Amino acid sequence: MANEEKVVYNAPSEIKEIRVINTYELEDEARKIVPKGGFDYMSGASGDEFTLRQNNEAWNKKGIIPRVLADVEHPDPSTSIFGIDIKVPFIMAPIAAHGLAHQTKEAGTARGVSEFGTIMSISAYSGASFNEIEEGLNGSPRWFQIYMSKDDELNKNILDEAKADGATAIILTADSTLSGNRHRDERNQFVYPFGMPIVSRYLTGSGKNMSLNNIYAQSKQKIAPRDVKFIAEYSGLPVFVKGIQSPEDALLAIGAGASGIWVSNHGGRQLDSAPGSFATLEGISEAVAGRVPIVFDSGIRRGEHIFKALASGADIVALGRPVLYGLALGGWKGVYSVLEYFEKDLKRVMQLAGTQTIADIKKARLFDYK
Amino acid sequence: MANEEKVVYNAPSEIKEIRVINTYELEDEARKIVPKGGFDYMSGASGDEFTLRQNNEAWNKKGIIPRVLADVEHPDPSTSIFGIDIKVPFIMAPIAAHGLAHQTKEAGTARGVSEFGTIMSISAYSGASFNEIEEGLNGSPRWFQIYMSKDDELNKNILDEAKADGATAIILTADSTLSGNRHRDERNQFVYPFGMPIVSRYLTGSGKNMSLNNIYAQSKQKIAPRDVKFIAEYSGLPVFVKGIQSPEDALLAIGAGASGIWVSNHGGRQLDSAPGSFATLEGISEAVAGRVPIVFDSGIRRGEHIFKALASGADIVALGRPVLYGLALGGWKGVYSVLEYFEKDLKRVMQLAGTQTIADIKKARLFDYK
Amino acid sequence: MANEEKVVYNAPSEIKEIRVINTYELEDEARKIVPKGGFDYMSGASGDEFTLRQNNEAWNKKGIIPRVLADVEHPDPSTSIFGIDIKVPFIMAPIAAHGLAHQTKEAGTARGVSEFGTIMSISAYSGASFNEIEEGLNGSPRWFQIYMSKDDELNKNILDEAKADGATAIILTADSTLSGNRHRDERNQFVYPFGMPIVSRYLTGSGKNMSLNNIYAQSKQKIAPRDVKFIAEYSGLPVFVKGIQSPEDALLAIGAGASGIWVSNHGGRQLDSAPGSFATLEGISEAVAGRVPIVFDSGIRRGEHIFKALASGADIVALGRPVLYGLALGGWKGVYSVLEYFEKDLKRVMQLAGTQTIADIKKARLFDYK
Amino acid sequence: MANEEKVVYNAPSEIKEIRVINTYELEDEARKIVPKGGFDYMSGASGDEFTLRQNNEAWNKKGIIPRVLADVEHPDPSTSIFGIDIKVPFIMAPIAAHGLAHQTKEAGTARGVSEFGTIMSISAYSGASFNEIEEGLNGSPRWFQIYMSKDDELNKNILDEAKADGATAIILTADSTLSGNRHRDERNQFVYPFGMPIVSRYLTGSGKNMSLNNIYAQSKQKIAPRDVKFIAEYSGLPVFVKGIQSPEDALLAIGAGASGIWVSNHGGRQLDSAPGSFATLEGISEAVAGRVPIVFDSGIRRGEHIFKALASGADIVALGRPVLYGLALGGWKGVYSVLEYFEKDLKRVMQLAGTQTIADIKKARLFDYK
Repeated sequence: MANEEKVVYNAPSEIKEIRVINTYELEDEARKIVPKGGFDYMSGASGDEFTLRQNNEAWNKKGIIPRVLADVEHPDPSTSIFGIDIKVPFIMAPIAAHGLAHQTKEAGTARGVSEFGTIMSISAYSGASFNEIEEGLNGSPRWFQIYMSKDDELNKNILDEAKADGATAIILTADSTLSGNRHRDERNQFVYPFGMPIVSRYLTGSGKNMSLNNIYAQSKQKIAPRDVKFIAEYSGLPVFVKGIQSPEDALLAIGAGASGIWVSNHGGRQLDSAPGSFATLEGISEAVAGRVPIVFDSGIRRGEHIFKALASGADIVALGRPVLYGLALGGWKGVYSVLEYFEKDLKRVMQLAGTQTIADIKKARLFDYK
Repeated sequence: MANEEKVVYNAPSEIKEIRVINTYELEDEARKIVPKGGFDYMSGASGDEFTLRQNNEAWNKKGIIPRVLADVEHPDPSTSIFGIDIKVPFIMAPIAAHGLAHQTKEAGTARGVSEFGTIMSISAYSGASFNEIEEGLNGSPRWFQIYMSKDDELNKNILDEAKADGATAIILTADSTLSGNRHRDERNQFVYPFGMPIVSRYLTGSGKNMSLNNIYAQSKQKIAPRDVKFIAEYSGLPVFVKGIQSPEDALLAIGAGASGIWVSNHGGRQLDSAPGSFATLEGISEAVAGRVPIVFDSGIRRGEHIFKALASGADIVALGRPVLYGLALGGWKGVYSVLEYFEKDLKRVMQLAGTQTIADIKKARLFDYK
Repeated sequence: MANEEKVVYNAPSEIKEIRVINTYELEDEARKIVPKGGFDYMSGASGDEFTLRQNNEAWNKKGIIPRVLADVEHPDPSTSIFGIDIKVPFIMAPIAAHGLAHQTKEAGTARGVSEFGTIMSISAYSGASFNEIEEGLNGSPRWFQIYMSKDDELNKNILDEAKADGATAIILTADSTLSGNRHRDERNQFVYPFGMPIVSRYLTGSGKNMSLNNIYAQSKQKIAPRDVKFIAEYSGLPVFVKGIQSPEDALLAIGAGASGIWVSNHGGRQLDSAPGSFATLEGISEAVAGRVPIVFDSGIRRGEHIFKALASGADIVALGRPVLYGLALGGWKGVYSVLEYFEKDLKRVMQLAGTQTIADIKKARLFDYK
Repeated sequence: MANEEKVVYNAPSEIKEIRVINTYELEDEARKIVPKGGFDYMSGASGDEFTLRQNNEAWNKKGIIPRVLADVEHPDPSTSIFGIDIKVPFIMAPIAAHGLAHQTKEAGTARGVSEFGTIMSISAYSGASFNEIEEGLNGSPRWFQIYMSKDDELNKNILDEAKADGATAIILTADSTLSGNRHRDERNQFVYPFGMPIVSRYLTGSGKNMSLNNIYAQSKQKIAPRDVKFIAEYSGLPVFVKGIQSPEDALLAIGAGASGIWVSNHGGRQLDSAPGSFATLEGISEAVAGRVPIVFDSGIRRGEHIFKALASGADIVALGRPVLYGLALGGWKGVYSVLEYFEKDLKRVMQLAGTQTIADIKKARLFDYK
């Protein structure tokens, strides 16, 4: 390809602990060192970024009520999901192309996540192979996120590899059958500067020098309950359907055999004008009614957000951009610093809200701003 | 007229495809090349432009809910109205004086609309004659928008000509019996730099060097159901009443023989402090109850807006300013680029909202921001 | 008084028609030519000026619905109150110290009001005497606004003079038993640069070089229904109670013999954190239930505002600051220009809202922004 | 300690009356003269300072309705609590480390409060000893606020001293079992520049050069109803539980023997995302139902705020930051000036709202902004 030469992408490479005071600021720090195309891809969203902003603003409709006579000390944020014990109710969300943030790619994130001690989600659009990621993950628990091929034999192939790699759950991303209207990427004419080894089998090319539009166009678009069923039956693993924003889809997914609901609007990157992800959680949780666990993502930036999501029906939450900014700023150690911050911040919130355990959070009443 | 000499108006003349990423930006681009008086006339509105802003903000009260297991691929936005099949549920709105935007005037717009493949609305205040417009339209479907004379014989005259030109529907603009309080035009002491051949028969002068205030003053002000009846009976064509913002007027119009309701607040150009046009749509649609089709305009800038309007009861929408900015920026090719963008954006939204057809959109539930 | 010498106040003196496009802009224009102390006194309000802003923002909670098939032409805004026919439903509000705005003082305003053809309200805190004002008023209808003395004999005195001057109604200002917390005046250490001939009988001094705080402190503070009764009985004239912001006070006033209710929050100048005046109108109007006429003021800047006030229960509205700015900018001709603007703007709104008469406005349904 | 030398903290020392027009401005004035670390500690709050802003914004959801025929003159703001008569319904809130604001420390505040004539709350984290404070307080009424040790014998010790000092009530701060997430202090690496004589018995060190995090970590975290009971029984004094933000905690506190409820969110310094303190008051007041008095703090900056708090169920309010800024700007005389301002402002509001007494305020209906 003629313009393959022209792509030069210098991702950061430093590895160091970072000081985290406020995770919103990590974005500003990352902007300074990540090449513009990559930074815009990571931080941007679709359309007027209305939904991206809603992801932040939705939190402000609900308040946490301080509780002061609750006899709490050293709150315990540990929980478990599908038999995996985790010390905190948050995990790493699946994100494509960590190599945009740091030269160690997904292996860097994996090491930070593994050393901290939670679950890593490996994206089908990883820039690293399973083997490369394993170098960082080092046997820690991992889930695999799949973007499906139009060819189910290739999907079986990918699922076989993910299982062989040790994935204990499959996350079916269903909200991205084509790319959102991402103005920043369009202006930058952004293409991935490296290949995507896991899905390259169904792309014309390796993924390198391809735009997201182009990659999605080669992936499966007709996602339906039968796909949930297919993955669940073929893999024999619990399947999450990711991108659920309505009670209807949650019920369809469960009916089709999903073992978990993943509430997300893809960080505001898909359908602009969609509600803030948190605004949809309570309704979905009521429909799910405890049948399966709920993972929540899109907009988590503070311990308070984790608390609000759990109090509104989520069982765990997934962190995305802040961790990726941590990766950019300090490699695996930066990832570790960010996760540690969230743990500390959540414990503080639990103490001030009078909740000793995750179960206490789930029973907490939130304040309704009118 | 003494100051006829002084009016020099250099409209843009370039013809080229334009790159459309976000239609809001077209306004900024057009501002750079369209003479100030003309630009302000096109983009401005009445009073404090409160209603103009409401036209944008009203969209944000409703969200589109992503649907992810809907088995959709290659959504089909085609529809039909009064027996005309169109490949998209949007048409060109009637707008006066396209010559302010481009030297090819309405013929330029008409060619872009016709090559793209939707319906052209010809304004009674066109700066081009039917014959000149036909050069661009080239036999494509067109509707005629009428501003009535105080003299019904002249109205008959105009309707005869419109029918002879091939109009298949008449749009009676009823919301402009006098000009809105347009500060920008008043500051600019704006007058039209060219005549209006279709209505010049009832003006003292050609329309050239006349202000909109002046032109409206010479047009009919007492619009009533009898006018709807008169136009329907005399023309034998389906009649839309344009400018409907209340259930009451919708029912009056249907009672008087209207074949369609055109919900619009004239782009915020008439009564400032009127609600955003989209905010009135649902109530009107409930009153109309499917008796006649509903066209919606005022504020459409994204595929999401088309989706929301259709989900709230509109059958098709009409595009105004963005197309005119496309005309300014690239003549008929610019018009084409803008229409193509809306088609692509709408299809993307349909896919992400899990809607295969226009009928699916009309059944979609919107999210209610509180 | 020692500092009597130091007060030099150069009010504008030009007399000319002014061009009014948007009355909000008159404030900016006036700021340029009126001495700062006087300008701040006229334009400022109390506290954080929260209520002043609410007076503007309250309008935006209600929209006017365009009506397009109403068969309206040449709408008629004339009305009458207490037997006085006026060509428009607006009058001049009572305001202190017009001499701050223009050297012609209240006589200038009176001439503009009288030539235009509506009712003048003469403030007890006028800087001009009845005789001086009569030069401008020239026999036109006038009402007299009273700030009461603590001594009822002096009040009788003042009422006698007002009646002798031809007042046909008395406006009892009841919301100003002490001065609001006006930061601007306090910073400026503002004192009136001229005396107040009407009330000087009960001041220690003429009013000149006195602060408003000081003047109010010498006026009556214990206002009660008995005062309404006293004024009504002694004067034999219709009495308005001005400053009503609650249904309870409206009923107390009517019970005590008030012939009219004047809804006002004194332009945001008294109790900061009070609601926008328009926000209180509907509730008051429901309580009054047509027993007596309602005058509304505080925040009228557009024809739309007059319409909304009338549609919410007011019978007429009173204009304050915009007229005073007109006085500053052009003397009596400036006053005339402003009043003419409001008439034209109101007629335009009436036409676009499909209302032929004031009675039609009073029946119009407003749009409720949620 | 090695870095004990490096701490140099030059607090202001001037003693003078100050001119108070708007208490919000005192913060800007204080910022100019108080060392940054101390100023940020006093003025800052936790997290994104969302709750700090909510403390201000919550007032704007309720309006005070002007009442104009209420026959009020010289309103009387005096009240009493636990047998102490006070001339105003506001007291001094407990605040740590006044020495950050002024070299006279708590003695300065105490003198201003005592000369003005209301109740002083002495914080356990005072930088001055009881004896030093007494120099300013001079026999005036005082309450003692306790942060508990983990060792109840030490708590008894402290309570004994407070009683010996003359405290007539104990305020148990229950909302601060660890420090809020205070970004400003973290950035400044703020440590107290002087010791805390009252609690130093249970700290490793005097408090000097210790961060708040560190100090809270050495204090008691497991606060429960039994602590309320312990303090009430041991001290024999009325106990307030401070930091109540929910009806549930109010009832728990009363059940455990609290003699008063202190509604506060610690000035937004603890749990960010908590509601504005005023937003919680009405619900708590309904639950308390008059069983015990309610003190309110967090966000009082105007007489209007005092009125709104009382009309929503509070019996008295406590002032914090504005008084501390007064201390910084003018020592005890600055404190006096600020208290005097609040008294004057409250009386003005009482007059304009037609309320003669505190009992009248408590019966007033507030306006509900929708």
